[in-house]
Amino acid sequence: MIAVLKHGTTPQQTEHLVNWLKNMNIDVHISEGKEITVLGLIGDTSRVDIELLNSLEIVSSVKRVSEPFKQANRKFHPNDTVVEVGNVRIGGGHFAMIAGPCSVESMDQIIEVATAVKESGADILRGGAFKPRTSPYAFQGLKDEGIRLLLEAKKATGLPIITEIMNIRSLDLFNDVDIIQVGARNMQNFDLLQELGKTNKPILLKRGLANTIQELLMSAEYIMSEGNENIILCERGIRTYETCTRNTLDLSAVPVLHDLTHLPVVVDPSHATGRSALVPSMAAAAAAAGADGIMVEVHNNPSCAFCDGAQSLTPAQFDEVNRRVRRIREVIV
Amino acid sequence: MIAVLKHGTTPQQTEHLVNWLKNMNIDVHISEGKEITVLGLIGDTSRVDIELLNSLEIVSSVKRVSEPFKQANRKFHPNDTVVEVGNVRIGGGHFAMIAGPCSVESMDQIIEVATAVKESGADILRGGAFKPRTSPYAFQGLKDEGIRLLLEAKKATGLPIITEIMNIRSLDLFNDVDIIQVGARNMQNFDLLQELGKTNKPILLKRGLANTIQELLMSAEYIMSEGNENIILCERGIRTYETCTRNTLDLSAVPVLHDLTHLPVVVDPSHATGRSALVPSMAAAAAAAGADGIMVEVHNNPSCAFCDGAQSLTPAQFDEVNRRVRRIREVIV
Amino acid sequence: MIAVLKHGTTPQQTEHLVNWLKNMNIDVHISEGKEITVLGLIGDTSRVDIELLNSLEIVSSVKRVSEPFKQANRKFHPNDTVVEVGNVRIGGGHFAMIAGPCSVESMDQIIEVATAVKESGADILRGGAFKPRTSPYAFQGLKDEGIRLLLEAKKATGLPIITEIMNIRSLDLFNDVDIIQVGARNMQNFDLLQELGKTNKPILLKRGLANTIQELLMSAEYIMSEGNENIILCERGIRTYETCTRNTLDLSAVPVLHDLTHLPVVVDPSHATGRSALVPSMAAAAAAAGADGIMVEVHNNPSCAFCDGAQSLTPAQFDEVNRRVRRIREVIV
Amino acid sequence: MIAVLKHGTTPQQTEHLVNWLKNMNIDVHISEGKEITVLGLIGDTSRVDIELLNSLEIVSSVKRVSEPFKQANRKFHPNDTVVEVGNVRIGGGHFAMIAGPCSVESMDQIIEVATAVKESGADILRGGAFKPRTSPYAFQGLKDEGIRLLLEAKKATGLPIITEIMNIRSLDLFNDVDIIQVGARNMQNFDLLQELGKTNKPILLKRGLANTIQELLMSAEYIMSEGNENIILCERGIRTYETCTRNTLDLSAVPVLHDLTHLPVVVDPSHATGRSALVPSMAAAAAAAGADGIMVEVHNNPSCAFCDGAQSLTPAQFDEVNRRVRRIREVIV
Repeated sequence: MIAVLKHGTTPQQTEHLVNWLKNMNIDVHISEGKEITVLGLIGDTSRVDIELLNSLEIVSSVKRVSEPFKQANRKFHPNDTVVEVGNVRIGGGHFAMIAGPCSVESMDQIIEVATAVKESGADILRGGAFKPRTSPYAFQGLKDEGIRLLLEAKKATGLPIITEIMNIRSLDLFNDVDIIQVGARNMQNFDLLQELGKTNKPILLKRGLANTIQELLMSAEYIMSEGNENIILCERGIRTYETCTRNTLDLSAVPVLHDLTHLPVVVDPSHATGRSALVPSMAAAAAAAGADGIMVEVHNNPSCAFCDGAQSLTPAQFDEVNRRVRRIREVIV
Repeated sequence: MIAVLKHGTTPQQTEHLVNWLKNMNIDVHISEGKEITVLGLIGDTSRVDIELLNSLEIVSSVKRVSEPFKQANRKFHPNDTVVEVGNVRIGGGHFAMIAGPCSVESMDQIIEVATAVKESGADILRGGAFKPRTSPYAFQGLKDEGIRLLLEAKKATGLPIITEIMNIRSLDLFNDVDIIQVGARNMQNFDLLQELGKTNKPILLKRGLANTIQELLMSAEYIMSEGNENIILCERGIRTYETCTRNTLDLSAVPVLHDLTHLPVVVDPSHATGRSALVPSMAAAAAAAGADGIMVEVHNNPSCAFCDGAQSLTPAQFDEVNRRVRRIREVIV
Repeated sequence: MIAVLKHGTTPQQTEHLVNWLKNMNIDVHISEGKEITVLGLIGDTSRVDIELLNSLEIVSSVKRVSEPFKQANRKFHPNDTVVEVGNVRIGGGHFAMIAGPCSVESMDQIIEVATAVKESGADILRGGAFKPRTSPYAFQGLKDEGIRLLLEAKKATGLPIITEIMNIRSLDLFNDVDIIQVGARNMQNFDLLQELGKTNKPILLKRGLANTIQELLMSAEYIMSEGNENIILCERGIRTYETCTRNTLDLSAVPVLHDLTHLPVVVDPSHATGRSALVPSMAAAAAAAGADGIMVEVHNNPSCAFCDGAQSLTPAQFDEVNRRVRRIREVIV
Repeated sequence: MIAVLKHGTTPQQTEHLVNWLKNMNIDVHISEGKEITVLGLIGDTSRVDIELLNSLEIVSSVKRVSEPFKQANRKFHPNDTVVEVGNVRIGGGHFAMIAGPCSVESMDQIIEVATAVKESGADILRGGAFKPRTSPYAFQGLKDEGIRLLLEAKKATGLPIITEIMNIRSLDLFNDVDIIQVGARNMQNFDLLQELGKTNKPILLKRGLANTIQELLMSAEYIMSEGNENIILCERGIRTYETCTRNTLDLSAVPVLHDLTHLPVVVDPSHATGRSALVPSMAAAAAAAGADGIMVEVHNNPSCAFCDGAQSLTPAQFDEVNRRVRRIREVIV
């Protein structure tokens, strides 16, 4: 960490600051120029509060040279983390296709979709039981019954399942769930993250819709700092001024994350775009960008013409998406 | 709600849709044009899932004519809500100045700041006990001890207190707290909102840093739909590309919210700007914009030169800010 | 276009509005409901000022049903436009790789880069002669001398050339340039667009860094409305809060644009990310998303260790990028 | 400027870089730590290309310690610039109210509005003659006739006038205009800025809707570097994800700019919000934030019910806004 002191800082003030830093086990290398004095902070600066330091009267600016995340940092863990779920592996060259409906609606629906996506080559079944909704008046999911139905679909198809948790008090319901998803709105629900860090479940952590890549890694660090290193990061679109898509899928996050961290990175083009017509090309692009997995919404939609989400593929469309993604995977290496 | 059907929709498809809507107790007024058919949906459309409707094959676009929030809506509740805390009133022409340190640090600190801001005319004491921090390695607040110290400061000064909740499991600790704050990161922690809706405590709900004004009102609606109508909304800056300030304070939200809702609106210029030098002018601007209250950080900073947050005012600065704000309040009516 | 009138609008007011619209050759279909009245506007509504209409006292809201762009609209021109430059075609299944240095620096440099990228399979040579720079003190390009050197490189390699125009007064210098680029900062320099519309030169129009997809198409419409239909659209990243990349590449714009318009769409991953290490994966992703071309910066960097832009590939890296892009092109169809 | 070199940089590489910088008349102060080497660059670093430096293989990061703008910088010009237009002064404690219609429409209209706003206390008359419009099919203003009508209104009322330039070729038409406005879309039309820098006209430079405060100052620097120091900066809202207002008015820009530059700062709440109902409170807030002037749209709207822009005040509303703003001005000092 580099701290630049303001012109006019007295030697006493500098000494005061240096002593304070040394008390935190930080070595300080002082470089005095004519107009500015630069302090180089050496040691475990992840514990230094950059905002606090920046706020001092005598400090002109502060810059991190090393990242504030440690356990998620590729520098200290050069090899890719591979998350294992049943026979499925994600990361380190292993690619997973995650598919299923936005919400679990009924036994028939989830079994039918699960069977269809398995046939097309999906590796993991997704389905929402607890649904975070902007409106208190909208359907909030089948909750524990939804998880029960997902487990039935797992039994019927052998596919591992992933579903979202919204509240630490419902953790017991997730005992047989294979991957617990933390949704975008809860990416900085730190108490939830810490509790999940005490489990050994694989966690899929979605990027918040206004969160930076570094904040995503700090949230992963919250989980890892409690002992759970089975984390999958998920890019699912960020909020911008553009209105043609629900969010703006930030695919550059894939290579950026691969550079910064050893954790696997999956992409959710369904929630990012909000429009099923855009999912095939964005799934292809995510694969080409090097994602370790793709998570898409698939709906069977047989009897009810009005339950099909705008962002869901039909099983036939999913089949084609999966084929194309696999072809791209083969030619990018 | 207006739904525009695509060119080429068959009468059967239209009838199918109309019947589905009627089953939800929505009356439908059909207007057929040469190129487009427009459906006018009459009734309680807050229960209609606009995204789902929009996603139907035959639907070209959907537009809400009425807002999706009801209890927070000024149309159905024209008079300003006045939230009462002890002798303090917020809203309906009553203005409250909320001041105090970012974090409660010690008995001496909180008593000293509380005494100082009371003398300067503050109405309510703020102070963080549970601190949401981006990094798991940063100071997370004194927690229950922090609340205990706040209560001591309340006893010493008579000021009502406000402090942030991060987890519903710690609700018992807030029994004697006057206003419970929901932070920006938890604005869409729906389970937390619903639990708070079951209490009768005044809730200060902060706008999330990437949330729209409508989403803020929908989150208020989550609390109100459970029975608690004592809600204060808080604008505290949104995330933009500008880096001169920590966030971009969206003061237009004040008159927009006053138009849409009867709930009081306060402004937090300290967190919005992240720089104490900007707080005086932004506090003045918030008052001029018609805010029902202002919440600012004040720190005494006596012994430790390095604990003063970049965004905190000294008691003397707060005194001047409070005077200016009161003068502006007098001339804007 | 649909206009919703407010509750309480009098028949006289409605009639007044309808007559005003009829004077603009707009047919109006009135649908009166109990609470709202909906007007359906039929005809060439591209000339109706939606903001003005929306601002009327009696109007609650207005919604476009048809897009405000006409000549760029795929609905009225279903077949892909193919832009031809020498032997190179862009659009309608034809893909072009555009490569070259950020700035033209010297005869040796531009000839060397042009030769290298041609050998690797580039179709078009790019190079900046007029450089828009945030600072007036930064290098602004070799200007007319830069164009002269580009033309030498064209002569030496046979590659068509593309370079940016900043001012309509320098149009004469572009006589022998094959494609004129309009940079992001000039996307809404409407006078420049109109002048370029009077030429028959292919125009590459870059999306402004805070412009919507619809605004990009309206700017294309400015050029087309003057007679020039040889337009290539270019996605080059939009401005968001994320700081890991210079801008956020919005790859969803590719399928969205292909749906809305018949014009070809190319992607510039170099400017979007600002980091050469991210260019290979983002070029691959752009190809997978269906882009009609990719524009990347390549620098030879032989003698001067300090002239290599952060976002430029070496010729060897470009060779690899080009191969991967071509392989992806083969498998996405 | 501080440059941090990567771990592993060789002494030869460091020397190479230092020599290159010294050739640009930059003194370099080297500070070698165990893990990092820090270079302090002393001298006129405004000419150092920070992106280029940042892009070097051996450079880990670069940070400006001093701002890249010089003539606009308050550090080198501590006293406020006061721009004089006729008897009106802006800046240095002098406040100007600028009012008038969005577009000049007719002699009657502009004379009537000008007379009304003068009576209410406006200092300067605004009115659009050249109108930048997103659509080529929308009304583009009365152009030279519009300027002629503005000059008539100036003659009739004695008010100085301000109007927007879109193209350097029309500069001759602005001979008798008092202040030339550069619109948000042209904030980085550098050729236009440089030409205006060669005149001695006061320039009102609007912030682009996705431009940072620093970029605004760099654009002012473009004008000043050609010799014209009569610049008024204008905050008019930035583009964010919020849709309740057309743009998000960034009032924090007022104190930030007052800190960074000596140039006067005015605020345009009409374009920022796009809704006349929000203009009174935002004008009040701008005054309270310390703006040196406010620019609002006022329309007379006598005969035509459909010409009133959504963002325009009536003369009576303007009168009230002006009174409130003046009252706030009195109590903020």
